[in-house]
Amino acid sequence: MMITGKSYIGRELSGKGNVHYRTFNSNEEKENHWNIVEVVREEIDSALIKAKQAFLSLGKITEEGRSKFLREIANQLDEHRDELYEVYMAESSLTRSRAEAELNRTINQLELFAAHIASDSYPETVRHSGVNDLKKTYLPLGPIAVFGSSNFPFAYSTIGGDSASALAAGCPVIVKAHPMHAGTGELVAKYVLIAAEKTGMPDGIFSNLNIRSHDLGAYLVQHPEVKGVGFTGSLTGGRALFELAQKREVPIPFFAEMGSLNPVCIHPSALLNADLIQNWAKAFARSISDGAGQFCTKPGLLFAIKGSALESFKMLLTEELERCGHHSMLHPELYNGFMNKLTEASQAGGNQVRMFEQNTSASSVPSFLLSCTSEQFLSNKDLRHEMFGPAAIVVECQDLTDMNNAIAVLDGQLTGTMLYSDTIDPGLRIIFETIKERVGRVIVNGVPTGVEVCEAMHHGGPYPATTDARFTAVGTNAIRRWLRPIVYQNVPEELLPDELK
Amino acid sequence: MMITGKSYIGRELSGKGNVHYRTFNSNEEKENHWNIVEVVREEIDSALIKAKQAFLSLGKITEEGRSKFLREIANQLDEHRDELYEVYMAESSLTRSRAEAELNRTINQLELFAAHIASDSYPETVRHSGVNDLKKTYLPLGPIAVFGSSNFPFAYSTIGGDSASALAAGCPVIVKAHPMHAGTGELVAKYVLIAAEKTGMPDGIFSNLNIRSHDLGAYLVQHPEVKGVGFTGSLTGGRALFELAQKREVPIPFFAEMGSLNPVCIHPSALLNADLIQNWAKAFARSISDGAGQFCTKPGLLFAIKGSALESFKMLLTEELERCGHHSMLHPELYNGFMNKLTEASQAGGNQVRMFEQNTSASSVPSFLLSCTSEQFLSNKDLRHEMFGPAAIVVECQDLTDMNNAIAVLDGQLTGTMLYSDTIDPGLRIIFETIKERVGRVIVNGVPTGVEVCEAMHHGGPYPATTDARFTAVGTNAIRRWLRPIVYQNVPEELLPDELK
Repeated sequence: MMITGKSYIGRELSGKGNVHYRTFNSNEEKENHWNIVEVVREEIDSALIKAKQAFLSLGKITEEGRSKFLREIANQLDEHRDELYEVYMAESSLTRSRAEAELNRTINQLELFAAHIASDSYPETVRHSGVNDLKKTYLPLGPIAVFGSSNFPFAYSTIGGDSASALAAGCPVIVKAHPMHAGTGELVAKYVLIAAEKTGMPDGIFSNLNIRSHDLGAYLVQHPEVKGVGFTGSLTGGRALFELAQKREVPIPFFAEMGSLNPVCIHPSALLNADLIQNWAKAFARSISDGAGQFCTKPGLLFAIKGSALESFKMLLTEELERCGHHSMLHPELYNGFMNKLTEASQAGGNQVRMFEQNTSASSVPSFLLSCTSEQFLSNKDLRHEMFGPAAIVVECQDLTDMNNAIAVLDGQLTGTMLYSDTIDPGLRIIFETIKERVGRVIVNGVPTGVEVCEAMHHGGPYPATTDARFTAVGTNAIRRWLRPIVYQNVPEELLPDELK
Repeated sequence: MMITGKSYIGRELSGKGNVHYRTFNSNEEKENHWNIVEVVREEIDSALIKAKQAFLSLGKITEEGRSKFLREIANQLDEHRDELYEVYMAESSLTRSRAEAELNRTINQLELFAAHIASDSYPETVRHSGVNDLKKTYLPLGPIAVFGSSNFPFAYSTIGGDSASALAAGCPVIVKAHPMHAGTGELVAKYVLIAAEKTGMPDGIFSNLNIRSHDLGAYLVQHPEVKGVGFTGSLTGGRALFELAQKREVPIPFFAEMGSLNPVCIHPSALLNADLIQNWAKAFARSISDGAGQFCTKPGLLFAIKGSALESFKMLLTEELERCGHHSMLHPELYNGFMNKLTEASQAGGNQVRMFEQNTSASSVPSFLLSCTSEQFLSNKDLRHEMFGPAAIVVECQDLTDMNNAIAVLDGQLTGTMLYSDTIDPGLRIIFETIKERVGRVIVNGVPTGVEVCEAMHHGGPYPATTDARFTAVGTNAIRRWLRPIVYQNVPEELLPDELK
């Protein structure tokens, strides 16, 4: 495993900057030995010049050609699993089985987009012969900047869903590598570029830039040759870059997925007997603590009606959370952020169901369960901030009306969940409607974690879950973020693209 | 014909403000006698409170119900044609035949959306049974503010394409009535509201607000209950409101269509003989001067290779433009704006093909043809500004390469046109590619004016033609601006919307 710490400007390794940083191994509580070199503006410019050239060449490459490229990336990743796992684990402190599952998902996504664009129904065309002969198809927007997430070094970073969908659309990709797993990023980029060369893709179709500073991130978003951005990260970062993208001389589509509280509404019937209580306690303990709770769909708020059933559920859930053990978080910075949010929620009235442990660290975090009343929840916004780690808050409500009022103050969310076990009463129906208006996905009697990658998926939701509720980050429709329609009116066959001939 | 000058806050006529203004009859060079009352903020708030309520009630109204509403609006407009034409002509100075054509188009659009949402394929759903049962459908965004255009008092204003598509989607509409045809707006709104009452639509589904000041327009765009905006107008206005929409605490989709130069590239083969020259001169004279050139798809730039054929074309085109006579413009303000742009273009080197007439006015504008060299065009941006009126600039190029370089400096456009008559040579092919990258619709051997309303149409294009090249203002897909996907995971039949049952 060789990490140079340099950036890929197209195929070329480059490291002109003099700012260096290192990634961190939370498990071993030490920095990784490879040294990452942050790019300078000139290198960003070079990547964009190459991307612009590549975009022109891509016009001559068919869907089949791009499809082969995506499949070859999948092959390359598949062939170098051990090497990839090693750096992934060193930089994320996630387990090998998680690394495997995530790489499989990444490979599946690449193959899904490869199959999608190779199918006869892509791109969606419409024809009309009236006064004129009209033929509609889609064109790619141009070079897309991808800001990878911290929590999915494979599946939502370097060649994750954003990059795969943009390349599938025919857009060159410039990745702003996540500084917490820059080594993994470099290695993945290396295999993407080998695949590009093998399948005859133009130089500049893919670049991987080591960027840590806000200034350079902003420079990339404002670069005139960038025609769209895919971002996965925090609300603060996403919002700031979104505004820069809209203030450009030429505003560009900026799709950000920025986190979610993923409320769960528990109808009393879901906790009607000991079996049900046990069942949901087990399921939610895993959903809250898996991946150290560092998932965008982690259930962060559990709304329930107070009483003895809820007390039993809280106790059992705490026990199950304890059984899930301690976790390493991705990075000490995320650990600190998580602990701060936890403290804020505590100070805002979130009671500890069991006492917090005192000696926690990024390498050893237990799961936390807080509870508060619906009144506290309504009056204090600190109980409505995402805690990016293994924690959830139980909001104790008087009745279903009270629960409905509490969820009605929530902003947009990726998901909303409802648990029940008997007939659907009017109170439950109202809650369902309230959830529906606020989320991109409603789950009944299940957990929100686990996002299937398929055409029917929608991973998005009203602001601040995303910057545009009309688009998805997961599933084949994710490609629509990077395409624009065009109509050919009375255009002779010779000039039409293949799909319209 | 009774114009009260008041606004409709839902069904209720209201006129609490003390700012008054009048519309203008350019033909007769006098103000119309009805007095328009500008709303106050409180009335905007009331409209939004009603719209929010209406949005909740709309959840219980089926697609068939909304479809009936749209059809009844069409009926109402059809039944009151004479009255509508009278105020339309008084406020726009457009002809009766134009009024008829535009009302027919408005009615057709309403019927198109009515049929679209009543069809079995609406909304587009996707199902998947894997680990989970996933069912995807679409939800409306919520109340939509519509800023109508000046140049289509029927088809792109009160109940034009933006309003019809938003209502079809299930979104209440709050129209910011265009001050230049506020009387027409009030009358149209009256019939929309009669249709709403007849078909059992909730109060607040439609409001029509008289607004002239930028402040009140900004207040509407920033109102927390507004969930999306459709705007048709100038780049300056559209851009300013777009930025406000993105700076809101919760940013909202803001679709603006903001004008276009609609370049036409004339290959020498298109002017090869006297018949061809005559043919294109006639066609383009009408396309430039129809509706006093006040169309977003009016061809504003004609690129051609200099020489004797072009000289003949310019002379014939001028003659044909003269034959089209003098026009009344919509409003003295637009006349003044047009004359200013014309003067700027002249000062920037645009030569008059024939001398300008000295005594023109809003009620009597001839058509203007300027010409400049490609060098002048490249060096002076004033030759690349939209002239919203009956005028075009011929850009004289050395050869096809020079022509290609000239069109390559253009920003995003709604349309781009190419004329030729023999085989497609490599130079023409390059020009076609350059056009394609900049426009939403490419026309070959035709004129850009005349936008068919159908599923295959795309009326949009890269910035600054619109704020988002991924959406269209015309055709059934215009509804996609106001819809967001949602997925139901393992949701029982009882809670599913009809289309997923």
